[in-house]
Amino acid sequence: MAGKVYLVGAGPGDPELLTLKAVRALGEADVVVVDDLVNPEVLAHAPGARIVHAGKRGGCKSTPQAFIEKLMVRCAKRGLTVARLKGGDPFVFGRGGEELLTLAAAGIEVEVVSGITAGMGATAALGIPVTHRDIARGVTFITGHTRDGAEPDWQALVRSGTTLVVYMGVANLPRIAGSLLVAGMPASMPAAAIQHGTTPLQKQVISTLAQLQSAVADAGIGSPALLVFGAVVALAGAEALDRTERRAA
Amino acid sequence: MAGKVYLVGAGPGDPELLTLKAVRALGEADVVVVDDLVNPEVLAHAPGARIVHAGKRGGCKSTPQAFIEKLMVRCAKRGLTVARLKGGDPFVFGRGGEELLTLAAAGIEVEVVSGITAGMGATAALGIPVTHRDIARGVTFITGHTRDGAEPDWQALVRSGTTLVVYMGVANLPRIAGSLLVAGMPASMPAAAIQHGTTPLQKQVISTLAQLQSAVADAGIGSPALLVFGAVVALAGAEALDRTERRAA
Repeated sequence: MAGKVYLVGAGPGDPELLTLKAVRALGEADVVVVDDLVNPEVLAHAPGARIVHAGKRGGCKSTPQAFIEKLMVRCAKRGLTVARLKGGDPFVFGRGGEELLTLAAAGIEVEVVSGITAGMGATAALGIPVTHRDIARGVTFITGHTRDGAEPDWQALVRSGTTLVVYMGVANLPRIAGSLLVAGMPASMPAAAIQHGTTPLQKQVISTLAQLQSAVADAGIGSPALLVFGAVVALAGAEALDRTERRAA
Repeated sequence: MAGKVYLVGAGPGDPELLTLKAVRALGEADVVVVDDLVNPEVLAHAPGARIVHAGKRGGCKSTPQAFIEKLMVRCAKRGLTVARLKGGDPFVFGRGGEELLTLAAAGIEVEVVSGITAGMGATAALGIPVTHRDIARGVTFITGHTRDGAEPDWQALVRSGTTLVVYMGVANLPRIAGSLLVAGMPASMPAAAIQHGTTPLQKQVISTLAQLQSAVADAGIGSPALLVFGAVVALAGAEALDRTERRAA
């Protein structure tokens, strides 16, 4: 009998932000292939499974993508159920699309289990309503780290009037902030950086486009972190921040 | 003792896409104030609560926003725990930001519980990896229905190179498709419409920018539905569609 693969989003960090469907998939799994950025507490839902760590942690040796995909194909062909557990949502900068295509090409049944992406979960933890209708046209998720090194069209992004959420952008913050200024975003635009959002380790700064870089340095925020640019950032609640700090204490 | 309000995202439709935290909030709630678009099965997690329906169903009389907010403030001040249950995520076109600000101004403790927004969940149900790195710069969520009637900057959105997901856009599809063509999006750009995504009632069409309107009419897709424009739509899996159809059968 053929097995199957669940591509599962583990959410932004807080293990309570896992979906019921993800919990079921983990419970069914014989093998869980898990990225480093996933909160290890989530694995409590897969007590009987073999756990394979397939991380991308900066600096350490990471498991090549081809090996991960081959492992999943082999397990599924043996009739095993595999849960491929990724931080956030598998289809938001998670290479879930690539894995889905590879698995489907190998004839493996795949089911995608969406997760709360950090751009939603970590911003909500700060009380930032990313699409607040009076002041944002919508929200855009982009990455600060592209494979080909090409730059996004920053001018178009600024002109779109959407809240900009940049994943994996801290390492390139000077370049990104400079590009946004050149593209016409006001230096006073509210901006935030969030690391380890929705977890007890959460760190964040609320600042402006012009000041974000120094604020991030002062707060000791490192990769991976989320950057947020837009008027909605000014709505981040003092209450939400207090609550975060209480939780972290 | 003061009560509190949870602003809870119910996810895109499938009750299994509720988070563990949402389940806990519903279990704690004395009162659940629920939007019409929420799958009623979700309310099974709040067996002891009083349920208040506060819908916006097209054509029917809907509960004014001010009344909903006043009700929540009154309940919380009496010491009750309120779960405000919204389709998708409370901060994506859900007026959660407005409710958060009103409640905070009234001195009420509020906690936001993120949900899977339809732009993620319904697209994933079709196997569309919205940020697939070879062919999308990212993803943008916008609404086809703005309060002031003003149009988004379609040209900037097209130039951004992000996958465009338009909420509540079916009623305005001719105008939106026309604007995208004028803004320079190719007529052959893959495009999809999804109604009741992730539920047994799910209906979808995969088409192109030029053909989407007639495809939507042929398929009998009505409001509310999600529109998706971008090269990633071409990756929608035949398998995913088969699965959906099997589930709906």
